[in-house]
Amino acid sequence: MSDTYEPFMAKVAELADIGHAEGMLSWDQETYMPPKGAAMRARAQGTLAGLHHERLTAPELVGLVKDLKGQDLTGDAAVNVREVGRSQDRALKIPKELVVELSQTESLSHEAWIAAREKADFAHFQPWLEKILKLKKEVAERVGYEGTIYNALLDEYEPYTRAEDIEPVFAALKDKLVPLVEKIAATGKFPARGVLDQDFPVAEQEELGRQVLEDLGFDLEAGRLDVAVHPFCSGTSRDDVRLTTRYSADWLPGSLFGTIHEAGHGLYEQGLPEDAVATPAGGSVSLGIHESQSRLWENMVGRSRAFSTHYLPRLKALFPTQLQNVNLDEFYAAVNQVEPSLIRVEADEVTYNLHILLRFELERDLFEGRVEVKDLPSVWNERMQQYLGVCPPDDAQGVLQDVHWSFGLMGYFPTYTLGNLYGAQFFHQAQQELPDLEGQIGRGEFGGLKTWLNDKVHNRGSRLRASELVEEVTGEKLSADYFTNYLEAKFGALYNL
Amino acid sequence: MSDTYEPFMAKVAELADIGHAEGMLSWDQETYMPPKGAAMRARAQGTLAGLHHERLTAPELVGLVKDLKGQDLTGDAAVNVREVGRSQDRALKIPKELVVELSQTESLSHEAWIAAREKADFAHFQPWLEKILKLKKEVAERVGYEGTIYNALLDEYEPYTRAEDIEPVFAALKDKLVPLVEKIAATGKFPARGVLDQDFPVAEQEELGRQVLEDLGFDLEAGRLDVAVHPFCSGTSRDDVRLTTRYSADWLPGSLFGTIHEAGHGLYEQGLPEDAVATPAGGSVSLGIHESQSRLWENMVGRSRAFSTHYLPRLKALFPTQLQNVNLDEFYAAVNQVEPSLIRVEADEVTYNLHILLRFELERDLFEGRVEVKDLPSVWNERMQQYLGVCPPDDAQGVLQDVHWSFGLMGYFPTYTLGNLYGAQFFHQAQQELPDLEGQIGRGEFGGLKTWLNDKVHNRGSRLRASELVEEVTGEKLSADYFTNYLEAKFGALYNL
Repeated sequence: MSDTYEPFMAKVAELADIGHAEGMLSWDQETYMPPKGAAMRARAQGTLAGLHHERLTAPELVGLVKDLKGQDLTGDAAVNVREVGRSQDRALKIPKELVVELSQTESLSHEAWIAAREKADFAHFQPWLEKILKLKKEVAERVGYEGTIYNALLDEYEPYTRAEDIEPVFAALKDKLVPLVEKIAATGKFPARGVLDQDFPVAEQEELGRQVLEDLGFDLEAGRLDVAVHPFCSGTSRDDVRLTTRYSADWLPGSLFGTIHEAGHGLYEQGLPEDAVATPAGGSVSLGIHESQSRLWENMVGRSRAFSTHYLPRLKALFPTQLQNVNLDEFYAAVNQVEPSLIRVEADEVTYNLHILLRFELERDLFEGRVEVKDLPSVWNERMQQYLGVCPPDDAQGVLQDVHWSFGLMGYFPTYTLGNLYGAQFFHQAQQELPDLEGQIGRGEFGGLKTWLNDKVHNRGSRLRASELVEEVTGEKLSADYFTNYLEAKFGALYNL
Repeated sequence: MSDTYEPFMAKVAELADIGHAEGMLSWDQETYMPPKGAAMRARAQGTLAGLHHERLTAPELVGLVKDLKGQDLTGDAAVNVREVGRSQDRALKIPKELVVELSQTESLSHEAWIAAREKADFAHFQPWLEKILKLKKEVAERVGYEGTIYNALLDEYEPYTRAEDIEPVFAALKDKLVPLVEKIAATGKFPARGVLDQDFPVAEQEELGRQVLEDLGFDLEAGRLDVAVHPFCSGTSRDDVRLTTRYSADWLPGSLFGTIHEAGHGLYEQGLPEDAVATPAGGSVSLGIHESQSRLWENMVGRSRAFSTHYLPRLKALFPTQLQNVNLDEFYAAVNQVEPSLIRVEADEVTYNLHILLRFELERDLFEGRVEVKDLPSVWNERMQQYLGVCPPDDAQGVLQDVHWSFGLMGYFPTYTLGNLYGAQFFHQAQQELPDLEGQIGRGEFGGLKTWLNDKVHNRGSRLRASELVEEVTGEKLSADYFTNYLEAKFGALYNL
């Protein structure tokens, strides 16, 4: 190994450790921080972000990367140098003044968004969104891109993926989803009503969450489950993975499938390669691949008939009065109710991706100049009507519902749909290679699937790019077919289509 | 103001923010971190400590301090420059490699101590303690000292205080304590037995803790109470103060007085000057002054007859079966039972300081070369017999009982006894200036005392040194008399001496 690689990796370790602190401070902010701590926490996070940027772009590390790039590296060394080089390159292209202005604008814009959503008043948020859009365009121009300007944004969350490549896949998805949603909506069946519209005490939901984490193989010696208003999975390394969930006494699926979803993220993190901990090669591939793991466990496992078979008796033990008269068919149908609705985060598996496709299209329209910010509410409402057959009565339930844009998270939404597609393609492959998979799930045995995912996905770190990983694991490029076939089979049966 | 002061304070803010991250990571390690997270946490803490050291000793800040020291500064500016100069001077003398090695050793040593204490196996901890001692001696030699080498350690926790100055005060204390403990032990009275030897459900103890925090005026919008194996108070600023406690179902006073103790620390932190937040001038004076606040609230308030008068009825409401037949005299006597025992943190107010004096002497013996680490268990047990008339049956109940040395906290113990002495001297003064104090406590009104402490102690930050503060608030130098007079009066009456 080259004699510049060791000092390079020492710098990489330092960056990872600063990231460790930033991650812990964020986790604490969302879980345990008392309200008055917010101002000083924001200041400390700003200082850590500045330190991280300073170390990443320090001349010494720039020199090390340049030197190593000229060498013929292989394996993890090649991945680490490539990825640190990418981040460094991006960081060097954005002047500090722009970072500061963006960060301040995002903070103020977030406050404006909260007020605007509260009053369902888009006009209050509009000038802020315009400013964010302008600054993000400036970032994109400075960072550079091939093809559409949108690729500069997408690349931050789904590296090496271009809008032009995913567009035909998303188009195929939409072509199947819109008629499927129409057919299901036309049946007028709402199987969850009555079955799940009851009170489920939070203490028992917590007990259920602990059981599920244990069954799925999430290691609680190397992680935790806490409560957060907006659930997430974060962590500082594979040895310390923090899941969060939330409990509503009147909506059991929220915590049950929410916990399974976050556990899917957590199993990915805990399964990352031990020999490359806290290095780019040992990290996750992309947000889309991350989401494939959470959605696979949440929907393809958690919302399967086999899972209900195993869990319904245990749920009846925890919630005897609520579920005593509910049979397997009723329960399975109830947790798979499809209903076109206004709010993305409450959407079922069938309608969910139409919410995302709408946002992806609007983001591209904004960046490519086909839509102006002031016209967003009307375009939003039109397309909701077109894709889902529903129309928001106000902008709080429409264009103002998501936090993302107020924080400058643009180019992030498509990773949710990519996750669903990757997840279905992986799961289909797992079914081929594990012929008894459904039987195992029905017996509450999740070790086979977990080990398969560990080997095929988790333990590879980011040594392959997302598109390479999908092709290597499944033998094919990304396709919408696995997901749409899965939906048509499952919901065709459930709704007698 | 000089035009170098603003850039100086920007650097000070950055140091405070790195300290914020270090503090949060430590808090998390003691409260919520899963066990497997320890190794990466140790590494991250090492990196942060290294960064802190690097920024503190950076040529630019060294130049700013040198420049400002040459100016005629007053007020907070003078304090900030003096204190940053002190830390910088100390840090410049310790090479970065030593700081990092110490920090990593402390983290790992702490894990070894946990295992050693669990198995009552000193041999498992011995090599770690030897390594820590070696590193701390190296630190002391590099930092330099006047008088005993021990002063280099003490100065870190109780700045500007020398072992030679406190020794005569501690000697006067020991002269009074040993015979007082003997006299009380000779009575053979154990009033807690029966009264407190019952089960007190943890849920009600938690409720009691919340009530007490509210009554004392601890702001839960600017702080929290969590559970830790070894309770402490930490925090990142006056706006985010973290208390911890622990609950034993079979020992009510543990959580009750433990929570009051930590609340005393917390009230100090929350009372620090708002206009000097996250600066040296706005910080606490010393560990001894900090401990004066916790012990004052825990013992002089919490274990007073007046406090029992107010709280016994409320305790009876929470624990009706356990306390229904207990009267005020019995309860007050029970929470003030004196019994020479093995464990420092469970010791009563009379015997407590003998535990500390023993540790203070052993630390000096270790550093001054009169005792070796391997001999600690036997020397410990001998002196326990001599001072308290009891002998540990194993090292878990002896030399392994305290967390401090595992974290490299040496020179720290004497601050506990200093705290008891400062606390008694402050409380005596409060009684002079607040004639109705006992009446207020008896009515559950703690605002008068809190405000007095806010004005006299908390809100002054570290603008005065410990010895100056004691003299300014009480009109006298530190003396053991206030504490021993308090003990003799209180326990003379309780035990009919």
